[in-house]
Amino acid sequence: MNKNILMINSNSNPITTNWLQERIEKFVDPETKITVVNPDFGPQGVDTYMDWLIAGIETLKIVSSNKEKYDAFVIGCGSDPGLDACRQITTKPVLGLSESAMLMACPLGNKFSIISTRETQIPVLEQRVIQYGLRDKLASIRYIQMTTADLMNREELIKNTCEAAKIAVKKDRAEVIVLTGSLMLGTEKEISEASGVPVMLGVVCALKMAEIYISIGGTTSKAYKYQQVKKKDQLIGYQELREVYSI
Amino acid sequence: MNKNILMINSNSNPITTNWLQERIEKFVDPETKITVVNPDFGPQGVDTYMDWLIAGIETLKIVSSNKEKYDAFVIGCGSDPGLDACRQITTKPVLGLSESAMLMACPLGNKFSIISTRETQIPVLEQRVIQYGLRDKLASIRYIQMTTADLMNREELIKNTCEAAKIAVKKDRAEVIVLTGSLMLGTEKEISEASGVPVMLGVVCALKMAEIYISIGGTTSKAYKYQQVKKKDQLIGYQELREVYSI
Amino acid sequence: MNKNILMINSNSNPITTNWLQERIEKFVDPETKITVVNPDFGPQGVDTYMDWLIAGIETLKIVSSNKEKYDAFVIGCGSDPGLDACRQITTKPVLGLSESAMLMACPLGNKFSIISTRETQIPVLEQRVIQYGLRDKLASIRYIQMTTADLMNREELIKNTCEAAKIAVKKDRAEVIVLTGSLMLGTEKEISEASGVPVMLGVVCALKMAEIYISIGGTTSKAYKYQQVKKKDQLIGYQELREVYSI
Amino acid sequence: MNKNILMINSNSNPITTNWLQERIEKFVDPETKITVVNPDFGPQGVDTYMDWLIAGIETLKIVSSNKEKYDAFVIGCGSDPGLDACRQITTKPVLGLSESAMLMACPLGNKFSIISTRETQIPVLEQRVIQYGLRDKLASIRYIQMTTADLMNREELIKNTCEAAKIAVKKDRAEVIVLTGSLMLGTEKEISEASGVPVMLGVVCALKMAEIYISIGGTTSKAYKYQQVKKKDQLIGYQELREVYSI
Amino acid sequence: MNKNILMINSNSNPITTNWLQERIEKFVDPETKITVVNPDFGPQGVDTYMDWLIAGIETLKIVSSNKEKYDAFVIGCGSDPGLDACRQITTKPVLGLSESAMLMACPLGNKFSIISTRETQIPVLEQRVIQYGLRDKLASIRYIQMTTADLMNREELIKNTCEAAKIAVKKDRAEVIVLTGSLMLGTEKEISEASGVPVMLGVVCALKMAEIYISIGGTTSKAYKYQQVKKKDQLIGYQELREVYSI
Amino acid sequence: MNKNILMINSNSNPITTNWLQERIEKFVDPETKITVVNPDFGPQGVDTYMDWLIAGIETLKIVSSNKEKYDAFVIGCGSDPGLDACRQITTKPVLGLSESAMLMACPLGNKFSIISTRETQIPVLEQRVIQYGLRDKLASIRYIQMTTADLMNREELIKNTCEAAKIAVKKDRAEVIVLTGSLMLGTEKEISEASGVPVMLGVVCALKMAEIYISIGGTTSKAYKYQQVKKKDQLIGYQELREVYSI
Repeated sequence: MNKNILMINSNSNPITTNWLQERIEKFVDPETKITVVNPDFGPQGVDTYMDWLIAGIETLKIVSSNKEKYDAFVIGCGSDPGLDACRQITTKPVLGLSESAMLMACPLGNKFSIISTRETQIPVLEQRVIQYGLRDKLASIRYIQMTTADLMNREELIKNTCEAAKIAVKKDRAEVIVLTGSLMLGTEKEISEASGVPVMLGVVCALKMAEIYISIGGTTSKAYKYQQVKKKDQLIGYQELREVYSI
Repeated sequence: MNKNILMINSNSNPITTNWLQERIEKFVDPETKITVVNPDFGPQGVDTYMDWLIAGIETLKIVSSNKEKYDAFVIGCGSDPGLDACRQITTKPVLGLSESAMLMACPLGNKFSIISTRETQIPVLEQRVIQYGLRDKLASIRYIQMTTADLMNREELIKNTCEAAKIAVKKDRAEVIVLTGSLMLGTEKEISEASGVPVMLGVVCALKMAEIYISIGGTTSKAYKYQQVKKKDQLIGYQELREVYSI
Repeated sequence: MNKNILMINSNSNPITTNWLQERIEKFVDPETKITVVNPDFGPQGVDTYMDWLIAGIETLKIVSSNKEKYDAFVIGCGSDPGLDACRQITTKPVLGLSESAMLMACPLGNKFSIISTRETQIPVLEQRVIQYGLRDKLASIRYIQMTTADLMNREELIKNTCEAAKIAVKKDRAEVIVLTGSLMLGTEKEISEASGVPVMLGVVCALKMAEIYISIGGTTSKAYKYQQVKKKDQLIGYQELREVYSI
Repeated sequence: MNKNILMINSNSNPITTNWLQERIEKFVDPETKITVVNPDFGPQGVDTYMDWLIAGIETLKIVSSNKEKYDAFVIGCGSDPGLDACRQITTKPVLGLSESAMLMACPLGNKFSIISTRETQIPVLEQRVIQYGLRDKLASIRYIQMTTADLMNREELIKNTCEAAKIAVKKDRAEVIVLTGSLMLGTEKEISEASGVPVMLGVVCALKMAEIYISIGGTTSKAYKYQQVKKKDQLIGYQELREVYSI
Repeated sequence: MNKNILMINSNSNPITTNWLQERIEKFVDPETKITVVNPDFGPQGVDTYMDWLIAGIETLKIVSSNKEKYDAFVIGCGSDPGLDACRQITTKPVLGLSESAMLMACPLGNKFSIISTRETQIPVLEQRVIQYGLRDKLASIRYIQMTTADLMNREELIKNTCEAAKIAVKKDRAEVIVLTGSLMLGTEKEISEASGVPVMLGVVCALKMAEIYISIGGTTSKAYKYQQVKKKDQLIGYQELREVYSI
Repeated sequence: MNKNILMINSNSNPITTNWLQERIEKFVDPETKITVVNPDFGPQGVDTYMDWLIAGIETLKIVSSNKEKYDAFVIGCGSDPGLDACRQITTKPVLGLSESAMLMACPLGNKFSIISTRETQIPVLEQRVIQYGLRDKLASIRYIQMTTADLMNREELIKNTCEAAKIAVKKDRAEVIVLTGSLMLGTEKEISEASGVPVMLGVVCALKMAEIYISIGGTTSKAYKYQQVKKKDQLIGYQELREVYSI
């Protein structure tokens, strides 16, 4: 069964998109074709609530205009921008990096810790864990105090994340480490070795769960939360969004 | 002390804005000046996750460009679009209708019920209650199955809401009724009489809480969640948003 | 609209009552008249469960005999003695310092910490937070190890509270500081500056919420928890209490 | 080992006290001596929050003046008035009817239902269950809509309670029925037969737990919550309470 | 990458084993080889706690003696017998049907309902959901009142499950249906059509998650819960178990 | 009333059994006869999930073959192996050490800490606390890092446990210490003195609760969770288990 998956790098940085495209392909099934794209507009990293709103809209626009062409969608950003909005406009499965990594961490150990980039993200991430219904599985959220822009300094990234992961295992009794951001791709082996516990990468977990849903026929439920709302055209403004909206 | 409050009707419908401006003024303190505005762009009612994202961005833009001119901001929409984003860009207090009504309901009775417009909104509202940390205060969420567009049919609106409120009191043991949407303004007296319990209106509660914060000097905390992130200019696209972003 | 509010300093110390009367007036609306009173009988500080019971009864007696004369009641003691009992005998709003400060802290930041006087109060306060349905909003409870009697040593009080607040922000990631006791009035500015986060004072928040309820017509719900029970006269003993009771 | 237990019927009705004394004796160990007493003052039934405060103080006074004479104390009232206050003034074990029955219900089945007298008591009881840390064990709270005064109509009491218990088992999947009030003594057999599940009576469970603590040396912890507070004499008023207080 | 998976049908019924082997193969990846086996000893259906203990031990013995030969293990029984025990003796991933189906249901909708065979299983299943940390995702547990032995009456099974699923969607607002038992294989299409929401089958989800872990290198964490305990040989009895134990 | 209680030391070590028999007798009521037995087969200490399964089955077999001869059963092992299974095959009360000690700790203080043997047991114990519905009563789980085999080194056992208990009181604000393992018998006095708080011993609490249930007629509920399932004989294998099963 051919599996045609679109991964939307929700920030507007084509360098990251290419970086992801090159590295994610080795994780796909033989029958899977993965395409990574990014919006033309929006932040180059999702660091603020405003970034999250803009990246969410831009991701939604891409999913909307590609609804028929792909079998599943992965929002390739650790903050899952636009996740609920995308699920509302399609019956195809839509996966977020954070949620996927947390779910895949569950069968491997009692509780997981998330390693975040900055301390200010901790309440944001805690709210996300609660929103996904997984508060009882959370050991802790630890941070490395690096900005998104600095994450390409791979040596420092790995060193800091290993340090945080080791503390999470020792002090918070984490049994699995969850890495939500797509730029963590490629660090998992060193972090797992340093911490002594399995590491779940959001970008890989989301991809693999998308493949599962395609092969077993899993679709987004339209019962309540993600039901599409029939509306008269009330959207004022850009034609482009009107089209997304009216679909 | 003069209190200068900006209420952003997050949808793009100037009719609602005017309707709100006229009716909200009787609730203000003598020293308060309230100004209701709306974005030029975006949905005329916030019914979907996409509406919520767009209305959030538009609300944020208005708050951003008025940061210096007002003492507090009220997001005049029952879905609190852009609430976290707005709080992140200012130290002034920013109030949402949903959160304010729920908080003001707490001292009046044991648990509250929210009356929603449509059944599909129930999981959305439940998540919002959880996000605000108030799950232990929630008796139930009931609905009236009307679209935003129909809410100006006031007779039907009141009849349906009274019916839902009565059931919430009798079956779910609600002791207070919470009405989040701004268009519920003016229905509170009849619903309170019909249900026999106090009714908290989001739009009024948010306004009055804003006045309190101005008079006692309450500001948005910048410790973690709402800390402003210093970023290099990474935003690609429209100049307008770049300005919001760089502030 | 004239707002006539009675604040009951639940302990029997008239010095505190006068101290409060002098300092609280600057927080009222122009139309508000606030009167602070205290019972003749009972503890001079609410430090034990027995104090709480006695202060509760005495507060109830004062509310009962003033039911018609005031528009709202504030129980001017950080332990909220008699709060439920007072709400049960009137439809007027009755505010407690603890509950009010916690609720007003919610829109200003993700989680709040409470600074208590003594370590032994921590489980007592934790139970109160849970009872008010706000456990998800609590960052921590910190203490300064001072007795109620020592709180008039203002320099030491401020120094210790600043220290505790700073630790709460740094270690427990509190974004707002909640001060429940009425004697904390006047310390808020220094504590906010030292900790870098907003401070919510129970005695001010309760007063301002009372003003809101008067202006928007908020009443205590009589649906279930606070329903007045019609009883045959079963009370044996002092005439005074019989009268409270039979009302 | 002789076990000398004082049961305080917290209401002021000596008829109930005698009724209890006669019926409770068949449940004691051969070495136990149980004495049931009641205060001279206070309500004849604990139906309101005010009743609860007064009965709590009166119970505390009795425990205080008998601290040396008994090995354990049972507060013989389903609302556990003064429970925390009594525990704070003695190291002897102090048992409440509600808490004891709920705890003893736990090993007998998955979840328990409480049968209350009136619907308005449901939020009160729910708060009590939460305060005792047992919310995960609660199937439901059902009620029979009878006043305390009517409970001596035994036929009606049993008929109504059997009906409520059967519904709790069938609809709420209760596996054990908890009866908190002391006047339920003697109804347990019929309710158990009608509902088909075990019934835990507060007054019996509290007595038996008290016997256990005496025989195994269980004392009230003085670590934090129930630590006695050393205070300078600050209590203004009746000599009697001053003595309680200063102990 | 070849994926060699052992599925242990935890009951001792070879008919079910063959039935499963035939039907599960169409769900595997091209590179996966799945082998279904069953113990010689034990119950033919896991209906009681005793069944669960015996099936758990028997499953553990099979996993233990095949530790080197397979890349992952699926416990092919809806009650996940021996799940923790198996995870403790291997670093290979071990999947249970219940846990896998619940996790895979999460990204497809807000909350899921589980359809159980008998009403008495409801508390058992509820405890399992809590143990897996997923209580916030549970809409309800519904039942069809059929014994394990009757499940081969496929027409009745499908009719009853469709009925229960429809009620779960309508009354409990389930957005996804979770079917834990392996014998539900083949009913999913009809149940999904009848209920209008996606259906997650435990036996398929566990298999697909096992494939993921093999391909991405997911192992069972040995940090705390599943750490193997080094013990001196203390096991008294059958040689066979001694060997399991000493590994 | 004669009370005939069977305590099953779930491990196969007769030395422990004799040790327990000698020491437990001083805790029984005059009318109680306690008999301690152990299985011939199984682990000599319950340290792993496999141990727990085997010890559970062996305990179940002993309870099953003694169902008529005793009035109540105590599973004399801190891990409560086979607790649910035993409750399912009898209406007599069945007590576990862990659950009993936690319940008896509740009326003595706000929260309890459990002192475990090894750090890896912490997630196991946490799950047990959650399963028993007592998560809100848990202050912490501390450990002494000793193996079951070493527990007979009493001096070290007491020294380590005192140390852990003191930290639990000071850092985690435990008000009661819970000791679940039967081998802790005899250490309680020293640990209570060192920590300054009451200590609840599982083996004593379970025995005393069993005596209560016998004297007040408390039986295991058969409503749902512990209902005996009528099955056709489907058990394949050892005659012995078939007999347990068919009862």
